[in-house]
Parts: sequence; C-alpha cells; structure tokens
Amino acid sequence: MVAPASTQEVAGVVTVCARHGAGIVPQGGNTGLCGGAVPDLSGEQVLLSLSRMNRIRRVDPGNDSLVAEAGCILADVQAAAAEVDRCFPLSLAAEGSCQIGGNLSTNAGGLNVIRYGMARQQVLGLEVVLADGTVWEGLRELRKDTAGYDLKQVFIGSEGTLGIITAAALKLAPKPANPVTFLAAIRDAGDAVALLGRLRSVLPDRIDAFELISDRCFDLVARHLPDARRPFAERPGWAVLADAVEGTDEGRVEAVLASCFGDGLVVDAILAKNKAEAAGLWRLRHAIPEAERPAGYCLKHDIGVPVGRLARFLAEAKALVARLEPDARPIVFGHVGDGNLHYNVLQPAGDDGFRERGADLSRSLYDLVAKFEGTFSAEHGIGVTKKELLRTYRSEVELGLMRTLKTALDPDNRLNPGKVI
Amino acid sequence: MVAPASTQEVAGVVTVCARHGAGIVPQGGNTGLCGGAVPDLSGEQVLLSLSRMNRIRRVDPGNDSLVAEAGCILADVQAAAAEVDRCFPLSLAAEGSCQIGGNLSTNAGGLNVIRYGMARQQVLGLEVVLADGTVWEGLRELRKDTAGYDLKQVFIGSEGTLGIITAAALKLAPKPANPVTFLAAIRDAGDAVALLGRLRSVLPDRIDAFELISDRCFDLVARHLPDARRPFAERPGWAVLADAVEGTDEGRVEAVLASCFGDGLVVDAILAKNKAEAAGLWRLRHAIPEAERPAGYCLKHDIGVPVGRLARFLAEAKALVARLEPDARPIVFGHVGDGNLHYNVLQPAGDDGFRERGADLSRSLYDLVAKFEGTFSAEHGIGVTKKELLRTYRSEVELGLMRTLKTALDPDNRLNPGKVI
Repeated sequence: MVAPASTQEVAGVVTVCARHGAGIVPQGGNTGLCGGAVPDLSGEQVLLSLSRMNRIRRVDPGNDSLVAEAGCILADVQAAAAEVDRCFPLSLAAEGSCQIGGNLSTNAGGLNVIRYGMARQQVLGLEVVLADGTVWEGLRELRKDTAGYDLKQVFIGSEGTLGIITAAALKLAPKPANPVTFLAAIRDAGDAVALLGRLRSVLPDRIDAFELISDRCFDLVARHLPDARRPFAERPGWAVLADAVEGTDEGRVEAVLASCFGDGLVVDAILAKNKAEAAGLWRLRHAIPEAERPAGYCLKHDIGVPVGRLARFLAEAKALVARLEPDARPIVFGHVGDGNLHYNVLQPAGDDGFRERGADLSRSLYDLVAKFEGTFSAEHGIGVTKKELLRTYRSEVELGLMRTLKTALDPDNRLNPGKVI
Repeated sequence: MVAPASTQEVAGVVTVCARHGAGIVPQGGNTGLCGGAVPDLSGEQVLLSLSRMNRIRRVDPGNDSLVAEAGCILADVQAAAAEVDRCFPLSLAAEGSCQIGGNLSTNAGGLNVIRYGMARQQVLGLEVVLADGTVWEGLRELRKDTAGYDLKQVFIGSEGTLGIITAAALKLAPKPANPVTFLAAIRDAGDAVALLGRLRSVLPDRIDAFELISDRCFDLVARHLPDARRPFAERPGWAVLADAVEGTDEGRVEAVLASCFGDGLVVDAILAKNKAEAAGLWRLRHAIPEAERPAGYCLKHDIGVPVGRLARFLAEAKALVARLEPDARPIVFGHVGDGNLHYNVLQPAGDDGFRERGADLSRSLYDLVAKFEGTFSAEHGIGVTKKELLRTYRSEVELGLMRTLKTALDPDNRLNPGKVI
C-alpha cells in the first residue's frame, strides 16, 4: 500500500507502477459494497490510498463552489460547505467515513438524489491522474462549458478504471431551511408512488427525500436499537419517510396528508413537531442496514426501475419471493422517489441453507428487474461482485463500448484491473 | 443529403458511408452558431438530416419521462410534456426550430440552466448509431443507474463526432407555477451578482432565470421592435430580468427589491403584474439577438467565468474594449446566474474596418476570460469556428484525451469529420 500526499506523488506512483507492470487499486474510505476498492488475491497489485490527500483546497461562496482533494471525508466536505452557509447535498449512510474521490468514482447516490441528482451532478471539474502518469488538470469551476468533450463525465462513475481522481471542483447548493419531516403509513408499497404524485401536485419540487420502509424494517430496528420502538401501533405494511423543504409550511403538508387519509391512501401519519422528532424518525431509517446484520444472512439487491412501474414491480417481486422462498423475509427500503430500492431478503429463521440457495432467488429477482427495464445496480456500482450481472444484463454493443473506452484510456490495464469490465 | 426516417435507416446510411469512405455530417435544426452541422466544401461529405425522425415515441407521466426521436423540434418536446402537465425545462431562443438531437449533441444551455442545468442533465438514456453502423440501445428511463460506465455522457456534447444520437429518454420536471417576473435596473453589472445573492438568501432555489441586460441592448430592441420602448426613463447602465417561482409570493420578491432599493443596489424596478406584462419584459430579452443584426457587424463571444469573479471580469473587459476599440459598442447580455455572458461588441457606426480588426479584440477578450479561469464557449460548442480556440486555450493533455476518445469511437474519422477536434 502507498499513501501519496499530493497529486504529483500519485502521478509518481502510477509512473513507477507502469514501468514495473503493476496494477493499481485506488482506495478511498473503502465503504463500497461491490469490492471495487479491494485488490485481488495475486499479491501483485499496489493499493493506492487517497486518504492523505484530504485538503479542502479552496471554498468560493461567491461561485457556490469548493475544491476538495479526493481523500476528503464526505462529512468534511459537507461541513466546509456549511461553514460558508451553503450545503453540499450528497448524503449517504457512510458519509462519516467514505471519501469524496470514491463517491465520484462510483457516482454515489444516497438520500437526496430526488432533488439534487447523483454525485455526478455535483461536479464542476476534476483533476485526474491518467494511466501513463500524466495529470489532467480539469479543475474548472464553471457552471457552463461546452469547449470540447466533457472529459470529467468519462471519469465519474468509472470506479478508478480509467483514471485516478485526485481532486474535484464541487457545486454547492443554497442551505435548505429546516424541512418538514413526516412518516406516513400506507397499506401497499405501490401507494408510495401515488402519495409522491399527490405531494408533488401541491409542492412540485419541494421534496428533498422520499424513502420507502417496509414494516419488517421497523421490527428489525426496534430489536436492534434499545431505545427505539415501532412508530405505529398497527402494522399497515409500509411507510414513507419524507422531507419537504423551504416554501413548504407544515400546513400544506398536513393538508395533503389529511386528504390522503380521507381517501384511505394514508392510514396513519406522524408529522415531526421539531428537529429532535425529525431526527428520531430519520434514525429509524438510518439504522436499517445495521439492524439487518444480527438478524441472519441477508441477500441484498440494489435495484432500480422506472418510478411509474414500481408498484407493479413490487407486487410481482413479492409473489416471486413467496413462491421461491416462502419463509424468507423481504426487507425492503430505499429511495422510492428515484425508483431505487434496496430489495433485501433475510433468511428464514434457522435456515442456513438459504445462503446457498440465494443465487437462484437473486437471479430471478434480477430477471424481473430486467423485465421492468430496470437496473441491477442503481447506486452501488459494479466493482467485482456485479461484473457477471453486467455481462448478463447489458448488451454486447454496450459492453463493447465499455471495453473500447477502457482500452483507449488504459491500454495496459493498469488501473483497477479486473474491476467493472 | 439523406433524410432517414428510422434508426435502422440511419444505421444503413452510416454503413454505406463507411464502405465508401464518405464522411457524415449529422444535422438537426441547423441553428448552431459554430458551424457544427454544416458540411465542408469538399463536396464529399454526406449531410444526414434527422428531421424526419420526429416522433415522440412515448410519454410516461408516472415516471416523469418521455422518449423523443432526434428530429423532434424542441418546442414540440416542451408541448408533449405540457400535455401531461409536466415541463421539459430546456428553453432557448431557437426552440421553435432547433431539434432535440442537436440540443443534446451540443449540450445546449439557455435560459433555465440556473435551476435545471444544461441539456445533459435532462437526459436519462440515449439511442445512438455508432461509427460502424451498429446501434447502441441505451434508452433506459432510470433516474439512478450505476451499471458500468455511463456511456450516454460520452455522446452528449460531442457534436456528432463520436456517434449519431437518434433518440433520447428525457427527464420531465413538475410544471412550475406562474413565476414572479421582474426587471431591476442596476448601475454596475457586478451588482447583478450581489442582487442574485440577496434574492437567494430569501428564496434559496426559487430563481428560474436571471438574465443580465446592458442598456445598449434596450436601445437596439427599441429601434428594432416597432412597439417596444425602453423600460426605464433613466439610463442606469444595466438591468436584470428574473423569474422567481413556486413558493414565491410577490410580497417576498417585492421586499427583497425594496431593501435593495434602500441600499442603492437597485435603482429602479418593474414587477410584472400579470402574464402579459411578464411576456412583454421577456420579449425585450428575446429580441436582442435579432435586434443586433441591422445595427452593423457584431463580434460575438459566448463566454463564461466563475460567477464570483464576474464583476471583476466585466470591469476589466470594459476597460479592455475602451482601450482597444474606444468607439465600439459592447452589447452585453446573458445568463449571469450561471456566469455565462454573450459579450458581443458592435462595430463603431460607419467603421467597416472593425470587421478586420475584430480578431485582435476577440483574442484579447478570450485571453482575459482565460485569466479568470473561464471558458471561450459556455453554451455554443466548438463546431468548426472555435477549433482554433480549443487548441489555444486547452492543455495538450486535454486535447490528447479528446483525440483518444475520437480515435477510439470513430477510428476512420467518418462522423462529422473536421469538427471539434
């Protein structure tokens, strides 16, 4: 492992590795879920940690931008934005340890995509060390620039296989006012999409987050967090946790919820009365991944389908799991406003054979996703663990284009070899 | 010229051209300003018009998306969105004749970038005919997808040199409520940035458009449109035309303007009282490019600088023009909220020698833009007319990367040869 402290040092490492034919695996906070930042078992790959490149190089509130080195922790980037009364809207569970370079090289998603877009959309410019050790200085801080191909787009989301991001110029957003947070109980997951439509008709783009949570998630969390309890007395089946922001007064949100309650679309609701109550509701959501762990083996799927087809997809997925693994327990939650769900399936209690049978269930679920023209990787990338899925579900033409890019930009296959493509 | 009516016909044309070694120039509405859609003078290039591929293939309001063929007029895409009570937010002067394929292949900008981003940000998926005639079917309609390299990003903004876009899946936005439109007179162009800051502190992201207009623009428009007149009795120097949207009541905008008036930041203001008044104000803005024409030779610069440096840039640019061409008349307008200005310079009355001297002035202005770390092409692309600027102002590493992409995706240089790079 090497841990260079500057762009020039990264370039130096890449040059030396090129000379000796060694592959390089760039690593940020190592929080990825698909093994994209982990060397193979050959013992011949150089692990390049960006952790020491952790300076915020400059902050320009007048331009609503800042320049951060790749090794900056995401939470530190958010804090640097907050210091000048702005917000860096990328937000995800690992924000306390993931690094911005990793976020960009995987095009991370998270909670606020519905309003602000993926990591890609937060980028104004990049500094990248290329496969031959040259440095591309593309740290422009412009909101509009059509001077030739937009090269940064090629490196964002390429998981370190086309170049090593060493710094990024990032867009800042105005700091949002305190949101109105609510948790609404619904009977059917498909109703979440209907509820989103109703909210949007009154508050067109005032929804910052819109998360679906299945009842079983609350069970797990209540068991995992000593002081947490199920939010609703009844077991309606599903809930939506949402933030609505500035220009939104509580009254308007309350009115929408009341009308949905009248129609039976919403069966119960909790409107947070203050920041602490809002944080309490969000804590239930954030704790889900952790609460899954002690419950047994959990088969995970980071899937996405077009939002309008989500209700039908969920119905068919439920039937599929019931047919193939009647005793398994789907733990479904995620960013329903973007069509992205973490469709996880927990093993039947005591049935450790599930782990082996899991591949079949996964494959059937991914086939279903494909039928709905969805994706088997909405926000977690490919890394190594999803390479086979990429080969299965994407066309030969598409794979060929990816190989063409890889060969063009890294002809000797030095950058994160064996990942993505 | 060929005008195929389907993707397969486009692929057929490309295959035949490849066999015969002919270059292909894709053309949409031919409204580009840099000659990107115009064949060279060799007589050996095939002009491929996308005009007959003008179907909206599907509209999915549940997913807030639609699929349009490349030859759809932008205004028709907007209309298809409006029919399902949504908005397609890309908006520019040529929207009545430019085509969506051209908008995407040039990554068009326009009036609403400040809120919605460039054309690139409106795209969910693409269908592209590649240099060898194969079709990449990438028309996914997903908001999140990290399954491998995001190939659409490579084709967007590449001006038809890497592939021919034949259809696009586009994001729709909620239909915004009627905006509050106002025209504010200011003394100094730099004050526009300060005014934007003040507005944003009260209405963080409620600004849909924020256009700077110099006094001289109003003179030209008043001369050009028989029924238009100068909006202000005084000649303050500059004005800002802005739209603020939903969640905004007039009262809040009025309060900001009143406080700015108190400080001397705003010297006069017109708040549109209804839709007709708002349209009247916007008509003044839209008429500027046309009003320039009869006034004489006009040297045009589509430039961008970081927003926070705009005030200083404008001061230095003014001094520069005054020094080099004291009698020339800067006609400055544009999307100041994005740091993008159309910094045009009209010939001194009766001085036709200006046309020849223009190149020197342009070069000096572009040097100034470079000093401010800006761009010589914020939203008009490269085409042929800006190729030399690209070579001058972008690094060898950057140009090398662009050539690498071009060679990888179009090894025989068949697609829009001689453009961009």
